[in-house]
Amino acid sequence: MSQNINRYKVDLREIEFVLFEQFKAEEVLGKGPYEAWDKEVVQTSLSECAKFSQAVLGPLCASGDREGCKLVDGKVITPTGFGDAWKKSYEAGWRTIGLPVEHGGQGSPKVVQALCEEFMCGANAAFAMYPGLTIGAADVILAFGTDEEKHLWAPRMLDGRWGGTMCLTESHAGSDVGSAKTMAYRRPDGKYNIKGAKVYISGGDSDFVDNVIHLVLARVEGAPPGTKGLSLFIVPKNKIDADGNVTGPNDVIVAGIEHKMGINGSATCQLNFGENDDCVGELIGTVENQGISQMFRLMNSARIAVGIQSVALASSAYLNALEYARDRKQGSHITSWKDPTAPRVSIIEHPDVRRMLLDMKSRVEGIRALIIKLAMHQDRAQVLGETDEDKRAYHLGQIDLLVPLVKAFGSDQAFRISETAIQTFGGAGFLKDWPVEQYARDSKIFSIYEGTNHIQAMDLVGRKLGQNGGANTQAFLGDVQSFIAAHKDHPVLGSSVALLDKAQESVGATVMRLLGWFQSGQVPMVPLSANRFLEMMSETAVGWLLLEAASIALKKLETLPADHHERPFYEGKRAAAVFFAHSTLALVPGKAEAIALGDDSPLSIPDGGFATI
Amino acid sequence: MSQNINRYKVDLREIEFVLFEQFKAEEVLGKGPYEAWDKEVVQTSLSECAKFSQAVLGPLCASGDREGCKLVDGKVITPTGFGDAWKKSYEAGWRTIGLPVEHGGQGSPKVVQALCEEFMCGANAAFAMYPGLTIGAADVILAFGTDEEKHLWAPRMLDGRWGGTMCLTESHAGSDVGSAKTMAYRRPDGKYNIKGAKVYISGGDSDFVDNVIHLVLARVEGAPPGTKGLSLFIVPKNKIDADGNVTGPNDVIVAGIEHKMGINGSATCQLNFGENDDCVGELIGTVENQGISQMFRLMNSARIAVGIQSVALASSAYLNALEYARDRKQGSHITSWKDPTAPRVSIIEHPDVRRMLLDMKSRVEGIRALIIKLAMHQDRAQVLGETDEDKRAYHLGQIDLLVPLVKAFGSDQAFRISETAIQTFGGAGFLKDWPVEQYARDSKIFSIYEGTNHIQAMDLVGRKLGQNGGANTQAFLGDVQSFIAAHKDHPVLGSSVALLDKAQESVGATVMRLLGWFQSGQVPMVPLSANRFLEMMSETAVGWLLLEAASIALKKLETLPADHHERPFYEGKRAAAVFFAHSTLALVPGKAEAIALGDDSPLSIPDGGFATI
Repeated sequence: MSQNINRYKVDLREIEFVLFEQFKAEEVLGKGPYEAWDKEVVQTSLSECAKFSQAVLGPLCASGDREGCKLVDGKVITPTGFGDAWKKSYEAGWRTIGLPVEHGGQGSPKVVQALCEEFMCGANAAFAMYPGLTIGAADVILAFGTDEEKHLWAPRMLDGRWGGTMCLTESHAGSDVGSAKTMAYRRPDGKYNIKGAKVYISGGDSDFVDNVIHLVLARVEGAPPGTKGLSLFIVPKNKIDADGNVTGPNDVIVAGIEHKMGINGSATCQLNFGENDDCVGELIGTVENQGISQMFRLMNSARIAVGIQSVALASSAYLNALEYARDRKQGSHITSWKDPTAPRVSIIEHPDVRRMLLDMKSRVEGIRALIIKLAMHQDRAQVLGETDEDKRAYHLGQIDLLVPLVKAFGSDQAFRISETAIQTFGGAGFLKDWPVEQYARDSKIFSIYEGTNHIQAMDLVGRKLGQNGGANTQAFLGDVQSFIAAHKDHPVLGSSVALLDKAQESVGATVMRLLGWFQSGQVPMVPLSANRFLEMMSETAVGWLLLEAASIALKKLETLPADHHERPFYEGKRAAAVFFAHSTLALVPGKAEAIALGDDSPLSIPDGGFATI
Repeated sequence: MSQNINRYKVDLREIEFVLFEQFKAEEVLGKGPYEAWDKEVVQTSLSECAKFSQAVLGPLCASGDREGCKLVDGKVITPTGFGDAWKKSYEAGWRTIGLPVEHGGQGSPKVVQALCEEFMCGANAAFAMYPGLTIGAADVILAFGTDEEKHLWAPRMLDGRWGGTMCLTESHAGSDVGSAKTMAYRRPDGKYNIKGAKVYISGGDSDFVDNVIHLVLARVEGAPPGTKGLSLFIVPKNKIDADGNVTGPNDVIVAGIEHKMGINGSATCQLNFGENDDCVGELIGTVENQGISQMFRLMNSARIAVGIQSVALASSAYLNALEYARDRKQGSHITSWKDPTAPRVSIIEHPDVRRMLLDMKSRVEGIRALIIKLAMHQDRAQVLGETDEDKRAYHLGQIDLLVPLVKAFGSDQAFRISETAIQTFGGAGFLKDWPVEQYARDSKIFSIYEGTNHIQAMDLVGRKLGQNGGANTQAFLGDVQSFIAAHKDHPVLGSSVALLDKAQESVGATVMRLLGWFQSGQVPMVPLSANRFLEMMSETAVGWLLLEAASIALKKLETLPADHHERPFYEGKRAAAVFFAHSTLALVPGKAEAIALGDDSPLSIPDGGFATI
């Protein structure tokens, strides 16, 4: 088991390339809210946060998985060391780096916050969920709460004294949030009595904070059915007085914790509110029935956070497989495979191992580029402020469009990349001695929570594609087409750019086809193809960004002497882009053609046709 | 956890369709060695074995996973109940159903043995490995041992008194079996002193047998290097006298057991032979250096067995997801999704859930058909005996060709189907309360052991495609083409058959391309495309067999009255085939085109280009 300690790996050179060389983060540094941030501060922050994650969070990743959480006498016991790690995370400031200075943060650009989050998730995905959700919950209170609420609840959630959760899911409802049965009854004092049960509450309790502040979706008596009748309430585990001192318990009971495939260090709780009719909550803000739109602020950042979790684990899975492939000697070189006396070589010399490594590298780096692109849109919109409404609208539109791609494609690929990492290790990958099997187990939930990947796909095709009259989609495809126009005759990348061109044409054509189904009343055909469309569009986006990176790298190579130590790094960028284009972009047109066939067999099969039992 | 008890599911109607309606098993029943087997005996055997698996093995599946194996004072402790299940499996006769009567078996057709194995693996994959490997090891002794060896060792391995293993892997060597360092030193008594260490030995020890008979690959002093210098030895855990009575330990030490992602009920052992220079083994047969070809008999059936394990878990994963989808009410029907007061429906009514179910159904049934096809080739060859050499050669050739497809495609898909089953359950799929997360964990090893899936792909392209001057491949493609010719104008299946036609053309063209690379000295290009080629060829085979099943089902439908209770079953066959053709066969030509692009970036990337750490 000792081999499993502190296995988190990150390549900071790659991070800096994406940040500064590809997405030109310097254009937002020193500007607007980021006045205090220059390149050096960013570099130091990232390098220090990576070190912290490896030193403090990494060693608890495997032990937290093995130990898991326990429920003892109604209280959650987290794995050994989690309380200490929580404290250190807040002391070091990494948890709050992206928060405004007035709330105790450091006001970093979103892109820096996203990368710090990647390091902390990569080192320990289960642990990182406790502070991640806490800060997300505090952010909702700051955005929608009354002044009193902002001052009473948020500060203690942001300095690490209190935890926070989001309580949406109910056991009968699942993804169908609108059918929530949890009720809120008005009290004479303006507060509400809360009654109901929620499940799958991450960080629903822990043993390292004085209080846990639950944001609970509930229906005020008499409110309309469905999502429109839901309100969002602040429901603390412990009641507090006007100074924020804990006065006693608030009838929030941890009814159970789940036993899961992965993220075992994260306490996934079943919470009962008001079992003894003594659970008091307060409305966020002053207007009822705003719960869903308020929750969506948190949900949107949570979906981006799932993309970040995904690339975090996938990246470390890849880098661990790479290290193993360099170290592990087995078999002879393919050119002398018939000679049993030939020297044994590192498995990185075997073509199929190189293929698996390059496959993982291209996906990891492409998905990270997509996330950094999204965060840079956030930062550029922030820096623009109200100086240029059109540009700002462009950036905000791209964020909306990219969220489902980042969440769903990122999470599907995290599991697949972990699978490939296991395969690269061979038998060792199946053992708990190495971290990759845990990455597979931990990452499996990413495709399910914060809206299943099908919900993401329906958000994309049913809502995002047509948002702003389709302007966001057109702007996205326009950006891809501009790159193609500028690089179609590129001496090295030309044939890959041609594959990108066909892929984006296929995406455009499929958008029209989906629209046609909507318009001709064949709505049930849309969900049958939505997941595949999201995949096609994500692959096109990733292929584009990899080729953009490669074009930058190839330009840089022209300036480097033949023996420069960074030549291999930049050549790796070329290889990743060309490989992805030829292995993945090349298949996108076929997927569009398959969608175009319009098969409806999943709809036409009789229910009894699935099986006779 | 109680929900997890006895969750193994099997649809016997589907099994009977494949066996009797599609592969016409009655043509071999009552003939040659299967004289005692008629349809009713087969049906009763299958139904009873399925019941036994569900009643006796199923309840130990989750508990065996949670409890795992322990090594206490050098002895392996298996999970509670495994010893009892072992005993009952032999008493009931299910383990030995396919063995010749003279060895205590029931001489069943291979296809019946394969299906019984599916039920036992599906109910408890970890448990089924102990008897599975034992019988495989006994079979090698019966095939290659001296008469004395056959009588001394095999009977006790076949009646459940002793266990057996195959010991190939060494920790430094992995897939590179030829570099094994375990040595055998000749003794004056004709036996050998064995010295060395083996790893990943499934069932390397257990607490429910008196002895474990290890088949150990070792190199006799002075033998040539590589696989050609390996011999196979019978090395018992305990020494025995001439009557087979245990006389004392044989210096075989369990140095450790592995902690794994899955199949935790199976003890995966590190074994040290001759640490105290007192480990005695005997050569199988009388000629040294035959170890690899002897081991390959076991390896070949083990690879088929991995395909069976794969479909076993995948099938139960699908059927569990199906049951959940029928039971679980959530959300409203897509036609009234905007109405929050619309009735909640079972999730099987949601198009994307139907898509996932049909996707799983088609893969499961297609892979099972491929396995049954292989087993029927075995049975037909058996029944032919020496009456028709050409026909027999055809059947034997198809077996050789199909083994890598069954092993590699089956195992890759088992993991993917488990993934889809988890997604169908949503959050519940990630919980240990339901069996699907365990299917994913258990099945992950299938792509690695008994020769990694890349080894299967290289076996296919480097050896099997060209075997018998390419005759096996031509016969396979010829069979597909005959089906296409007969069904291309089929009123219901015509468009799907057209997709099959394009897919098989792509397979044929890719065979030529791979051959071209071999012949033009571009050998390293072959492994880069081998896995994808195996996938294409497997998908084509599966698509063909599904369409064949559909054509049979549609003929049957013509004879059934409109209200016949089996109409939905047969319509399900049509839906599975059409769906697979439109979603998967449709992508095969694109894969061939991608291979044809001939990208060599995994070879050209400098080692330093993968990452800077």
